[in-house]
Amino acid sequence: MFSSNLLRHVTPEWVTLFSCIKCISRQCSQKQLKKVSVRDALSSKALGSNVRIQGWVRSVRSQKEHLFLHVNDGSSLQPLQIVASSDLQDRGLTFGSAIDVTGSLEKSPSKKQNVELHARHIEVTGACDPVDYPFKIKERHSMEYIRQFPHLRCRTNAFSALLRVRSEATSAIQSFFKDNGFVQIHTPVITSNDCEGAGDLFQVEPARRERKQEVADQEEKEEEGSPHFFSVPTYLTVSGQLHLEVMAGAFPAVYTFGPTFRAENSQSRRHLAEFYMVEAEIAFTRSLEDIIRVMENLFKASTEHVLTHCAEDVELFHKYVTPGHRGQVDLMLSRKFNVISYTEAIDILNRSSQTFTFPTEWGCDLQTEHEKYLVKHCGNVPVFVTDYPYDIKPFYARDNQDGPHHTAAAVDLLVPGVGELCGGSLREERLDLLRNRLTEMGLEDTYKWYLQLREFGSVPHGGFGMGFERYLQCILGVDNIKDVIPFARFSHSCLL
Amino acid sequence: MFSSNLLRHVTPEWVTLFSCIKCISRQCSQKQLKKVSVRDALSSKALGSNVRIQGWVRSVRSQKEHLFLHVNDGSSLQPLQIVASSDLQDRGLTFGSAIDVTGSLEKSPSKKQNVELHARHIEVTGACDPVDYPFKIKERHSMEYIRQFPHLRCRTNAFSALLRVRSEATSAIQSFFKDNGFVQIHTPVITSNDCEGAGDLFQVEPARRERKQEVADQEEKEEEGSPHFFSVPTYLTVSGQLHLEVMAGAFPAVYTFGPTFRAENSQSRRHLAEFYMVEAEIAFTRSLEDIIRVMENLFKASTEHVLTHCAEDVELFHKYVTPGHRGQVDLMLSRKFNVISYTEAIDILNRSSQTFTFPTEWGCDLQTEHEKYLVKHCGNVPVFVTDYPYDIKPFYARDNQDGPHHTAAAVDLLVPGVGELCGGSLREERLDLLRNRLTEMGLEDTYKWYLQLREFGSVPHGGFGMGFERYLQCILGVDNIKDVIPFARFSHSCLL
Repeated sequence: MFSSNLLRHVTPEWVTLFSCIKCISRQCSQKQLKKVSVRDALSSKALGSNVRIQGWVRSVRSQKEHLFLHVNDGSSLQPLQIVASSDLQDRGLTFGSAIDVTGSLEKSPSKKQNVELHARHIEVTGACDPVDYPFKIKERHSMEYIRQFPHLRCRTNAFSALLRVRSEATSAIQSFFKDNGFVQIHTPVITSNDCEGAGDLFQVEPARRERKQEVADQEEKEEEGSPHFFSVPTYLTVSGQLHLEVMAGAFPAVYTFGPTFRAENSQSRRHLAEFYMVEAEIAFTRSLEDIIRVMENLFKASTEHVLTHCAEDVELFHKYVTPGHRGQVDLMLSRKFNVISYTEAIDILNRSSQTFTFPTEWGCDLQTEHEKYLVKHCGNVPVFVTDYPYDIKPFYARDNQDGPHHTAAAVDLLVPGVGELCGGSLREERLDLLRNRLTEMGLEDTYKWYLQLREFGSVPHGGFGMGFERYLQCILGVDNIKDVIPFARFSHSCLL
Repeated sequence: MFSSNLLRHVTPEWVTLFSCIKCISRQCSQKQLKKVSVRDALSSKALGSNVRIQGWVRSVRSQKEHLFLHVNDGSSLQPLQIVASSDLQDRGLTFGSAIDVTGSLEKSPSKKQNVELHARHIEVTGACDPVDYPFKIKERHSMEYIRQFPHLRCRTNAFSALLRVRSEATSAIQSFFKDNGFVQIHTPVITSNDCEGAGDLFQVEPARRERKQEVADQEEKEEEGSPHFFSVPTYLTVSGQLHLEVMAGAFPAVYTFGPTFRAENSQSRRHLAEFYMVEAEIAFTRSLEDIIRVMENLFKASTEHVLTHCAEDVELFHKYVTPGHRGQVDLMLSRKFNVISYTEAIDILNRSSQTFTFPTEWGCDLQTEHEKYLVKHCGNVPVFVTDYPYDIKPFYARDNQDGPHHTAAAVDLLVPGVGELCGGSLREERLDLLRNRLTEMGLEDTYKWYLQLREFGSVPHGGFGMGFERYLQCILGVDNIKDVIPFARFSHSCLL
């Protein structure tokens, strides 16, 4: 505690706790010491070298002559052990406090770590009252418990590991697309498209915070019939697909990776109001197989990258969150994904001895219970289901012009634990077929611009979207989607 | 034209236009030919090899025996020249049409290109009526003109070059942060923070599209006083900073790169309602110099990457859009950026012979005219202005506790042409100072969670935000911000 009071007066000078009183009165050479991350310190070969470490105390253990601290700075899951004089005990070095340490890196006598830091100076940068702090030393808190503290949960091992994995997975996905010649497009969040049929929309209008209710009512009246901020009603995007299709008229392949929104009144472990989608669109393709290949390659390349580059963080989940999940992940990576048609899927469901809540007639959409059964039926290897009934797919899905069952060239990827991970289709590139369908739906005028894409240099094209949070759930074995996003938004909850 | 009619019946078989009639009747070996991007074809050393190219016709020139087409597929600015039999003339090979070509790559006799494709088969995948198509062959359309066609403008050279540069710049920025140990955080778009003082907000509520007005009015009445979708009023984010500060309590350095929003009623060349921000936050820093160093390094590393990896695309802007701009970019890269204090900046403005519209007294905020003057005064080299008046900076800026002029540790980066490109500050990490300021503003309860970040293991930290569109304007010399974003949203305009 004392150091934060001291700091107010002597910042930015060093507040030393022991053994180097001279630092207060003159420029301390320790200040110029090389700042090293915990990650780099742990793998350092330069034993005996003087370094500076900054991080948060994760454990404190006192012995007769020595104090042992574990310090973590978020650069790795594993903390660095600090060995200090036991004089330091009860000097604010509590669980959760921030400290700044200089000392020498030495070989650790313990088998638990190769390296430890023998402290010469320790400064408490920020104190932490262990009584008020919601996380307790040596306790493993449940995901439900830490979820209540969105501003602090990144300080737990599990959630900081999740955030490192999420960052690395983001980077892996972007590398996959870049390496395969995809141009990244920032599709808009605010859109005037309101008829994509993808569920409930959020509406966007300028806020009117500072007006009193009376004034607001009056203004409301005056503005009746007056234009919106954008002159048209606007919504938060549910998908960047239509905007990517614009780009598939000028590039061989494009992708977007950003937030999408659904105003679904659901608090389920599978839904968020704001979530991330990876969407890709490929020009000059006439085959669902091309789309399927990209989905499978994306899944496998990204997952292998994450397993390699975040081995320790991933292991935490596979060991403590869903024990044994690593076997499931390895299975998915080692097998070729299955491909079955929707019609075959319906046959499988109807031949099964299981009783389903929802109907399994040809023409019905697949429900979570069906998806789960199909994945199990396929030996817990992901399965692509292709060629869905034409009538249950959106207007843009390409007509297979088949019979007696009329299908569209659409595909979903079902994975263990999660169900639907990706959805894609070939898009109707034939002007007359697309125009007929839009006219039937009364949308010809709304989608005039979309029809024009087919009027001028139309190309066969297709693409897919992958839910990024579901992807993380799938590879880590995390049950609740709220635990794989930094700040979860769902009905009745928008903390911070 | 005929081919798109034919296609409806024979897809996916080849529609050949000449010299290979057999393809229609049996499996054509050409189908298995290696598909090559225009970019790869142009740099190919495998002369004589058979390849397949798919793209859009950018020019058509007919000679006695030969037809010359330029085809572009978006993989590069430079098109590939196709040499075909003149029989093909008037067969739908119009400007803007999509074609699928097989043939052999040969050395070009012309000096304009190394390689050309001698076509054996050409299929018109998608026709394009040159009368209705808004872009005309051999015309250079103005940025203003092409802006009217947000669904088609990616098909112009200038805008497809912009999109490639934007994609590469995105990737360069992400690499910069990754290489420097920053964890990428997806900060939320929907937020309940409404008092960041960053201008006009957009409000978010579920859409009520399908209700009739009468029903809506009735429901409105019934719901009066009832909770919002999220139980609290919610807005589109104006900055991810506060959420990044959460993360700076657990990681050494974090960043976010995503859309941010302002409901500003402006149609200026400098403002959008939806734009992209790069924001970074660094833990354990007591010095604005650390923040300044990251900003300057980010700018220079990203720009050098883009100049190297998109040389041709960047050249288009530096040659045709703002001739001579390359010199300005090179100057910025070769010089160390200037650093002056706000107080020095005010002195410079007051000593100048120029008459300003806005006041230049100590305590006033800098306006665009002042920013421009300061950049010019510094020889058109970017300039950091530091230590702004405490009273004009937001509550989170760190108090310098100085006098007689009371300042906060905030910094802006001003660049030629654009003005303010980045803004940053050290954040107030001292609990009592922060609490006092929030209490004065009546915000202590609203920001209880923000205060708690300082209660538990607080660390000195700071960060900055960079407007991504302004960055692109700055390096390319593009005057209007609407021309550097795929789909521009501003007051009275939300096309598509």
